[in-house]
Amino acid sequence: MSNTYGKNIKITIFGQSHSPAIGVTIDGLPAGFRVDFDELKAFLQRRRPGQGSHTTARREPDEPEFLSGLADGVTCGAPLTAIIRNTDVRSSDYDQLKDIPRPSHADYTAYIKYGEARDARGGGSFSGRLTAPLCIAGGIFLQLLKQKNIHIAAHITQIGNIYDQAFDPVSISEQDLTALQTADFPVVDKEAGERMLSAIEDARAAGDSLGGVIECAAVGIPAGIGEPMFEGIENRLAAILFGIPAVKGVEFGNGFSAAALRGSENNDAFIMMGDMVRTRTNNHGGVLGGITSGMPLVFRAAFKPTPSISMEQDSVSLSKREATRLSITGRHDPCIVPRAVPCVEAAAAVAIYDMLLDA
Amino acid sequence: MSNTYGKNIKITIFGQSHSPAIGVTIDGLPAGFRVDFDELKAFLQRRRPGQGSHTTARREPDEPEFLSGLADGVTCGAPLTAIIRNTDVRSSDYDQLKDIPRPSHADYTAYIKYGEARDARGGGSFSGRLTAPLCIAGGIFLQLLKQKNIHIAAHITQIGNIYDQAFDPVSISEQDLTALQTADFPVVDKEAGERMLSAIEDARAAGDSLGGVIECAAVGIPAGIGEPMFEGIENRLAAILFGIPAVKGVEFGNGFSAAALRGSENNDAFIMMGDMVRTRTNNHGGVLGGITSGMPLVFRAAFKPTPSISMEQDSVSLSKREATRLSITGRHDPCIVPRAVPCVEAAAAVAIYDMLLDA
Amino acid sequence: MSNTYGKNIKITIFGQSHSPAIGVTIDGLPAGFRVDFDELKAFLQRRRPGQGSHTTARREPDEPEFLSGLADGVTCGAPLTAIIRNTDVRSSDYDQLKDIPRPSHADYTAYIKYGEARDARGGGSFSGRLTAPLCIAGGIFLQLLKQKNIHIAAHITQIGNIYDQAFDPVSISEQDLTALQTADFPVVDKEAGERMLSAIEDARAAGDSLGGVIECAAVGIPAGIGEPMFEGIENRLAAILFGIPAVKGVEFGNGFSAAALRGSENNDAFIMMGDMVRTRTNNHGGVLGGITSGMPLVFRAAFKPTPSISMEQDSVSLSKREATRLSITGRHDPCIVPRAVPCVEAAAAVAIYDMLLDA
Amino acid sequence: MSNTYGKNIKITIFGQSHSPAIGVTIDGLPAGFRVDFDELKAFLQRRRPGQGSHTTARREPDEPEFLSGLADGVTCGAPLTAIIRNTDVRSSDYDQLKDIPRPSHADYTAYIKYGEARDARGGGSFSGRLTAPLCIAGGIFLQLLKQKNIHIAAHITQIGNIYDQAFDPVSISEQDLTALQTADFPVVDKEAGERMLSAIEDARAAGDSLGGVIECAAVGIPAGIGEPMFEGIENRLAAILFGIPAVKGVEFGNGFSAAALRGSENNDAFIMMGDMVRTRTNNHGGVLGGITSGMPLVFRAAFKPTPSISMEQDSVSLSKREATRLSITGRHDPCIVPRAVPCVEAAAAVAIYDMLLDA
Repeated sequence: MSNTYGKNIKITIFGQSHSPAIGVTIDGLPAGFRVDFDELKAFLQRRRPGQGSHTTARREPDEPEFLSGLADGVTCGAPLTAIIRNTDVRSSDYDQLKDIPRPSHADYTAYIKYGEARDARGGGSFSGRLTAPLCIAGGIFLQLLKQKNIHIAAHITQIGNIYDQAFDPVSISEQDLTALQTADFPVVDKEAGERMLSAIEDARAAGDSLGGVIECAAVGIPAGIGEPMFEGIENRLAAILFGIPAVKGVEFGNGFSAAALRGSENNDAFIMMGDMVRTRTNNHGGVLGGITSGMPLVFRAAFKPTPSISMEQDSVSLSKREATRLSITGRHDPCIVPRAVPCVEAAAAVAIYDMLLDA
Repeated sequence: MSNTYGKNIKITIFGQSHSPAIGVTIDGLPAGFRVDFDELKAFLQRRRPGQGSHTTARREPDEPEFLSGLADGVTCGAPLTAIIRNTDVRSSDYDQLKDIPRPSHADYTAYIKYGEARDARGGGSFSGRLTAPLCIAGGIFLQLLKQKNIHIAAHITQIGNIYDQAFDPVSISEQDLTALQTADFPVVDKEAGERMLSAIEDARAAGDSLGGVIECAAVGIPAGIGEPMFEGIENRLAAILFGIPAVKGVEFGNGFSAAALRGSENNDAFIMMGDMVRTRTNNHGGVLGGITSGMPLVFRAAFKPTPSISMEQDSVSLSKREATRLSITGRHDPCIVPRAVPCVEAAAAVAIYDMLLDA
Repeated sequence: MSNTYGKNIKITIFGQSHSPAIGVTIDGLPAGFRVDFDELKAFLQRRRPGQGSHTTARREPDEPEFLSGLADGVTCGAPLTAIIRNTDVRSSDYDQLKDIPRPSHADYTAYIKYGEARDARGGGSFSGRLTAPLCIAGGIFLQLLKQKNIHIAAHITQIGNIYDQAFDPVSISEQDLTALQTADFPVVDKEAGERMLSAIEDARAAGDSLGGVIECAAVGIPAGIGEPMFEGIENRLAAILFGIPAVKGVEFGNGFSAAALRGSENNDAFIMMGDMVRTRTNNHGGVLGGITSGMPLVFRAAFKPTPSISMEQDSVSLSKREATRLSITGRHDPCIVPRAVPCVEAAAAVAIYDMLLDA
Repeated sequence: MSNTYGKNIKITIFGQSHSPAIGVTIDGLPAGFRVDFDELKAFLQRRRPGQGSHTTARREPDEPEFLSGLADGVTCGAPLTAIIRNTDVRSSDYDQLKDIPRPSHADYTAYIKYGEARDARGGGSFSGRLTAPLCIAGGIFLQLLKQKNIHIAAHITQIGNIYDQAFDPVSISEQDLTALQTADFPVVDKEAGERMLSAIEDARAAGDSLGGVIECAAVGIPAGIGEPMFEGIENRLAAILFGIPAVKGVEFGNGFSAAALRGSENNDAFIMMGDMVRTRTNNHGGVLGGITSGMPLVFRAAFKPTPSISMEQDSVSLSKREATRLSITGRHDPCIVPRAVPCVEAAAAVAIYDMLLDA
């Protein structure tokens, strides 16, 4: 049991890659909010497959149907449930996978946990497709946060060994973030983006895949949000971010690179900006002691390369208990990082909205 | 509210640096377990201050008193509460800190959150001292896990720009881990350890501090532990690890370095070892889809350099709303990473034991 | 936020009386269970409206559609979501209710909590219709419990001032309970049942309604289930039972009548039955200290009379802030107690199954 | 695991009757609150044993020591822990009880759950003594609620077959409640109180005990508090009230007696009182759909008679698996209801304060 996240709001995600539908229930939305469905649709569009040569060939309309929680298009205070039908389901692609686990997918651990009854079609409930309902929830919370002048956006900061320019954690602005939200390929440095796209194309041509890092920032969060110890900004963001398939690391501010620094280099001096207390640098990524400092919140999530690759791989037959070879022939992204950008934003929006409601 | 962690067991940590006591309540211990108090004491000793030149000068006996949960030295099924009295309390060291927040400490965010009523003495409840009760809990769970043949230990894999040899994530053994638990300075490569100690000494001499990275491994966890999506091994370990002061990043397996790899490099081929399914490499760090694979669990936590440094720093006066300078004169570690090693093990033990109990 | 229940399993209920659909997500079902859909349908039939003169005229097929959690009709370990479409929706019946709250319904408190945005159609999310998804969940858990030889059934022990014979809390058997599950009108004493039906008919004729009490028993629960203090059988059953609309009281064993007894009358002597420890009487209702004793679990839930009555009532206009009169003309049950019987069984099944999974 | 209660605040209770101490940790107290320790002491005094002939002979100073959560006597935002040392511990009274479970106590269920390791001394963690830490928490929350003009008090509405006058659920006032809080024996009708005391004396003389019912009211709670379905006022109050030993029933408003009424009798007409919406009667006890209506909150908890009686009783030897007789010789109350009054108030205060913080 595990598909529910949140303390003051709760999102519950359900569905498998090839079940009749996938969806999400959001409990705790304020009553009286008119969801901007066009904006939500545009947001969902960003994680949709089938948009370009760098993504999978599976095409889904991904149009959510709202089953509850609205009256006349406005939230009514009751839990909101939205579903997306699974229509483009080609189960046959995955038949061999029931017996031969794909390396670095959850096929084998699902087999151990659920046995023969697991839904092996398309990765079942471990499929990246389950990030669509996360994005429905996150898309709505992003709209609610915008009303509070909190803006969240992410960019691809690394794919393979190509790096985008990092956010300036002190001066990053709402305008910077808004620009990223509408970008075709969300990077700060467009030229780096071009090289990333071409690296993805190379990987595809080689029947291989690439990993990457997404950097996300949020501006406008008041100081004092988050709780100490186990319910801080970092704990709760990490707890949702690791729910996105392929995330293997999460860091805040300087993160792992802080390990190589001295205190005198990493400490952020407090300064007055008019009547406001700010920090001169923002190596802390906007969080001290689990609590927001009023500086931009900056964090990164590392994504492993898509485990689905066309190259033949070593695996085992679970039924025969012997070594075998596996070729994955279904559609798959050579790099899921571009499509994961809205997922990271969505996860951040859910967690941040939840923390704003802390008593 | 935030000091309780766990789903099947719950630990609740309380206390401030200068309150009468700090402590922990552990709810969910099995009845009938005879805690090895000597072993627990030895474990707590490892995070104790005052052990060498590389740690703070504050000396506390750190002897826990057990208030509940035991009958005749054996757990009775009721919540176990242990406290440690705060005896070596020199509040005067911290008087100026009520007005001038220390850079990169939680002083300022605590002020925003709790106002004038916050306990500013010694960092209050944000003090690293609160990891002592975490270690009491973790020390007990480590003993319980050992009974199940699950062994956990960590080493310092980086301090400043000095690196220890990484764990071999495939072959790391119970023996390797046990050796680390009794080491004075837990590293794989003793020579690297020497250089780390001398780097710490240099930082101290410069009135500065150093960060680092701790790598932790657990062997013996059966495959199939952890849940998908929001209650996986990674989510729940991260949620407790970010509760340790100064942790700014958490990664599993290859973590952030997976971002630079291709799928063909990062994927872990399944192989048969006798009748057991294993992976040839362990870039996944023992977790796939949030669930253990049966391979060693390997993760790392990044620690920022101790924010307390002797060098004068820029800060502000909260009362006067103006810039000022701050010199931190109290005792403080130039590098908390060595003392954080048992804290990471303790956090891992709590989280792993909790997950073993998942229905 | 409030529509999620459970610790080891979680059910999340969503929908409003007049939203496109209502439904439930069940997280934590064991993989590999083949739901008996015919049995589930028969169970849902028991709470369905439109079955006889004693129930409301609204007719819904109430056929659940399963969106997730199954593969080939068998649970796969992923969350199971089932929905029921709302088809027989006559919103016009309820138009005046947006302004004039029905006495003793949740119309007014929903208005205070959610304001103008609330879904006032048919009671919105406070509608008794939301017990249908509870019954889907409960119906599945009843099947799972039966596999463990745990049987749960309830009967109408009181309607108005007519009383059914109480369960014998010592000798109640699986056979007794199974008989009730298939009864048209679940009572122990059929003659009392006849009088209840005629009292309901009288109330309907008078444009009035009746309350009642449901007594529920579970046999086969092993001793030792439930936890002390805040997570006992009583706490957790009460927490779900009060989620059924109209429940205003919950008691276990002798319950309120124990208040009038002396200890010597209420105490249940321990006896040996062969090698088993049992109690001679069962005034404790199978729970001592929050934990099952191995005796049948017996509890009762009190239902207030249906607040919807045809008789004209005093109320207020929320817009005009003045007194007014209200006539409720829509369809409504003169007594919801008969239809609430499976709801009580469902709630009990959810809570008991959840507690069986306690670590 | 079970000793933690609350959603927005958390209280964690620990200790056994004969462990070194009992206590409570309260997480979520607002910073900056100066606890009135005299008032708290007076409140704790009300549940203290040894006050009169109607209570047990065990005498404990029950002076809490505050270990954390305060700075200069004011809450600082960190978890507050208070403990009470167990000083008057006569373990020998209870030696035989390890083998022979006392009828209707938790001795047997604790044995089943925890085995030989359970703390059988004085009922262990099932002892009524554990209500002292509940009262520490509740006493503090009562003070916090008073600041918000919310007043809670309870009276003994029934002992054996003697009944106090019920609260008038419409007109009950802060003054009525304050008077009860300072009463020696909290009843509305003093003459009924005299008869109750004499009935208790009779039961004691007979070596027997008596049960009773406590009625509690809260005034000043704004309308709109509580959530629908599983997190309503009723669900959450019941969940904490059943944590008080000996509680076997909980009802709101008319409760079980509503079952005998018609809708036209039980419905509460809405009326205007100036500009405020109120109800003419308050059969709903201040809660509709789980949410407060703005009318006084009124509920009752049924207490079974103290299971400890001097009369010899039938029981079994757990070691010999044979019938035996048991005489309970230790100190015990012939009726715990008078001392349970502040416990009910405390539980209500914790739950209501928690619900006020709902997002």
